[in-house]
Amino acid sequence: MDNPLDNLVRALARLPGLGRRSAERAALALVLKPDGLLEELQRALAAAKEQVCCCDVCGGFTTREANPCPLCTDARRDDSSICVVEEPGDILAFERAGVFNGRYLALGGKVSAARATGPGDLRLKPLVDRVSQGGVREVVLATGTDLEGDATAAFVAELLRTYPEVKVTRLAFGLPVDSGIGYSDPVTLKRAFNGRAEP
Amino acid sequence: MDNPLDNLVRALARLPGLGRRSAERAALALVLKPDGLLEELQRALAAAKEQVCCCDVCGGFTTREANPCPLCTDARRDDSSICVVEEPGDILAFERAGVFNGRYLALGGKVSAARATGPGDLRLKPLVDRVSQGGVREVVLATGTDLEGDATAAFVAELLRTYPEVKVTRLAFGLPVDSGIGYSDPVTLKRAFNGRAEP
Repeated sequence: MDNPLDNLVRALARLPGLGRRSAERAALALVLKPDGLLEELQRALAAAKEQVCCCDVCGGFTTREANPCPLCTDARRDDSSICVVEEPGDILAFERAGVFNGRYLALGGKVSAARATGPGDLRLKPLVDRVSQGGVREVVLATGTDLEGDATAAFVAELLRTYPEVKVTRLAFGLPVDSGIGYSDPVTLKRAFNGRAEP
Repeated sequence: MDNPLDNLVRALARLPGLGRRSAERAALALVLKPDGLLEELQRALAAAKEQVCCCDVCGGFTTREANPCPLCTDARRDDSSICVVEEPGDILAFERAGVFNGRYLALGGKVSAARATGPGDLRLKPLVDRVSQGGVREVVLATGTDLEGDATAAFVAELLRTYPEVKVTRLAFGLPVDSGIGYSDPVTLKRAFNGRAEP
């Protein structure tokens, strides 16, 4: 299509979380340009393109000027614990939760039959290298709770079997906070029930 | 903030329909750059900025090369009917519905006490000019159904009183399609009830 407004809608609709309708509303807001919205987005995109990259150590997001990233170079963090996630963005979610003070490792994906990605496509070597250097006491598997996340966690756990001194754990299953029982899917509810504990 | 990823999130979160969380997901997708997503959005933004403008006649979106816009120059459309909307994007919604074959006029806003916009900020002169040239039989007021849309419609209706040969109508109030009675707000339900008709 040659229509620049349609092209903008199409580009925005490719973003996750934006349906066709939201993309249209966003495109209209951009071409109406209140407070230089379009220009701000242009500047932010150019800066992100130029500066944001993935940390050579953990695979998380950082800037070219800070590689390895601050999480990898922070001497106050605990080297004996590694949290393994799928995507760089997952590290940001952990940091928001403020629950983990060790090191991270983003695999850069998960084992997926549908997308034909196998273990060979994941950043497993940096994980094994770090573990084999010694000093690691726990590897927390924080992959997603879908089938592919399960498969990825199982694969990594199997891979780490050769290091019996390393405790491998996985995040707990259960009900999300602020959610009604009536909204729970049966599998989650079953897992939450089986994992019940005294309050 | 200096962090380019945070800046990108902030710029995206300013788009309508994108909350903080969706903006974060979108920003992460952009910096991961699958299939040149970031570059496509950059190109689309640059093209929209350069080419998209508002039609000098109806105020709707068009490109600099097509001004007046195709809707204003299309000889098959009915000059005797004018549909008055608030924003350029509203014209696109009408065209999607395929329900109107006359000419459009986007006011470029609505009468709003909160935003301190009065009738003087609206494109009312082009409307009055067209009507006073004669040949217009109906003006359809298609402003929003909030208080400000009501006030704007009332103002335009009053303005057109001096042209008694012009029929001024407003879009019907009622239930939206595909919506349950239980989800209706009381005002909509009352209006739908009062406007009931034989099926």
